[in-house]
Amino acid sequence: MAITVVGSVAYDSVETPAGKYDRRLAGAATYFSLAASYFTDVRVIAVVGDDFGPDQEAVFEAHGIDTRGIERAPGKTFFWQGSYLESLNEAKTHRTDLNVFAGFQPKIPEAYRDSEFLFLANIDPVLQRRVREAMPGVRLVAGDTMNYWIKDHRAALLEMLKGLDILLINDTETRMLAGTNNPVKAARAVLTMGPKTLVVKHGEYGATAFFAQDAANASQRGPIRAFRAPALPLDEVVDPTGAGDSFAGGFFGYLASQREITPAAFRHAMFYGGVMGSFAVERFGTERLQGLSRREIDDRFLLFRELTHLE
Amino acid sequence: MAITVVGSVAYDSVETPAGKYDRRLAGAATYFSLAASYFTDVRVIAVVGDDFGPDQEAVFEAHGIDTRGIERAPGKTFFWQGSYLESLNEAKTHRTDLNVFAGFQPKIPEAYRDSEFLFLANIDPVLQRRVREAMPGVRLVAGDTMNYWIKDHRAALLEMLKGLDILLINDTETRMLAGTNNPVKAARAVLTMGPKTLVVKHGEYGATAFFAQDAANASQRGPIRAFRAPALPLDEVVDPTGAGDSFAGGFFGYLASQREITPAAFRHAMFYGGVMGSFAVERFGTERLQGLSRREIDDRFLLFRELTHLE
Repeated sequence: MAITVVGSVAYDSVETPAGKYDRRLAGAATYFSLAASYFTDVRVIAVVGDDFGPDQEAVFEAHGIDTRGIERAPGKTFFWQGSYLESLNEAKTHRTDLNVFAGFQPKIPEAYRDSEFLFLANIDPVLQRRVREAMPGVRLVAGDTMNYWIKDHRAALLEMLKGLDILLINDTETRMLAGTNNPVKAARAVLTMGPKTLVVKHGEYGATAFFAQDAANASQRGPIRAFRAPALPLDEVVDPTGAGDSFAGGFFGYLASQREITPAAFRHAMFYGGVMGSFAVERFGTERLQGLSRREIDDRFLLFRELTHLE
Repeated sequence: MAITVVGSVAYDSVETPAGKYDRRLAGAATYFSLAASYFTDVRVIAVVGDDFGPDQEAVFEAHGIDTRGIERAPGKTFFWQGSYLESLNEAKTHRTDLNVFAGFQPKIPEAYRDSEFLFLANIDPVLQRRVREAMPGVRLVAGDTMNYWIKDHRAALLEMLKGLDILLINDTETRMLAGTNNPVKAARAVLTMGPKTLVVKHGEYGATAFFAQDAANASQRGPIRAFRAPALPLDEVVDPTGAGDSFAGGFFGYLASQREITPAAFRHAMFYGGVMGSFAVERFGTERLQGLSRREIDDRFLLFRELTHLE
């Protein structure tokens, strides 16, 4: 089943303890698309500038990703500069040039309209909502957001959340959105805002999924039902950029590849999210995600399985 | 198989966001013993003062814990006062009165000498080593330590580590002991110090076990083999005191209850560690650990299993 993703296609300049690079192809929609492309058809909606050429186009084409929804606008492509020198868990932003992204008005190609899966990567919640409303026929909608929208665009964000089936955010964003520190109380609060499922990403500790039906079950005694997928302990994290988007791509790509979304399929999807996140951080930028084979992905899935399996 | 544990039996005064209590029975050896007592016979070596009476004795007796190794010395029992008002992940120590613990010289009752399992709870590594050397016949030795010994008693600690099969410490202690922040590099470093297995406790994110045979396998390509057990997402952590010791008690108690320590038994032990840790924090002090049934423990084990199981 095809996924349409709307989000940023960008250039990043990044410095990490392992080295640095300048103006490489990046952005949430890029990481997401590459990760998801190993599982299913992916269609991108984004905007780029004059500096986006055939070389960048080729990266998407090599993975069979539909780029007809990538609009070319006069000006420069969205640019982000950041570093992870003090902590690999949190980026320090040095510069953000929105460039052509400042006037982004997502346009949905006719050919995308039969997509059954929609992923709203981290952009202005007003735009996320507009895309979601323009595709009423989709079967499953997942999305991401970040602290900036949670703090300063809360009303628009809350409207957008009503249209989501699955929200994927990290620990800090969950606490901030819910206004409470306890992870279960925070999950319960977020699950009253619209999403039926909340996937909280814990970085090196994996991710936990919480489900609205369990959270709402007031008569339930004892601990809440949830599902925890591990992250792989790695000798070296070369570049954490895009780890969360790659998780989302692996997770949603795997889901979209399944005939039916059973609880087991959902659990496997969480594991494949971790798998794609673990690949993403092994090399700079999108390098590792560009050159994988399905065989490597499934071998790593087995490692993840062994990492948590009891028998 | 019986476990002998050496460590502190103490009184704690603790304040958490959920409330506070004054001078309740606590200490690493107490939490460990209670948690392990649901799985196997436990024998304690510790020292207490005149203020340790029949009521405290009765707590151990109710769980069939052998207290013949708890020495009565003139003076007061070890006292700790701490709070978790800013963070549930780290205690703030307000007061530590070593009292009779200052002159503690562990004496091993003759009846303890056939113990096959030995747990060295967090005390002076010189004493841990002495107990370990006095019990050369034990089959498996596990131990704990803390930042104070890692920073200021490193030489003694490194000597003690040589006698351990399994070291259980938390993330911060692992980084501090290894002198590196990357969790896998840190684990590899610690596993060259003596322990064949390192169990790193991550608090709300569970625990990861690393194994020396995998770490030493230099020809191995790709990620290190490890095992990750989850922690249970809880609506409320009433009192984090003793969570790590309860994890150790559940983990080592379960191992000691097994005829053979297979990889599957080890993995189950990691889960039972998480189970006992999750109970410990649900109420103040040792309250929850005192009143459990094996049925409740096994029900919670199933919750842990469901929390991570793929199918």
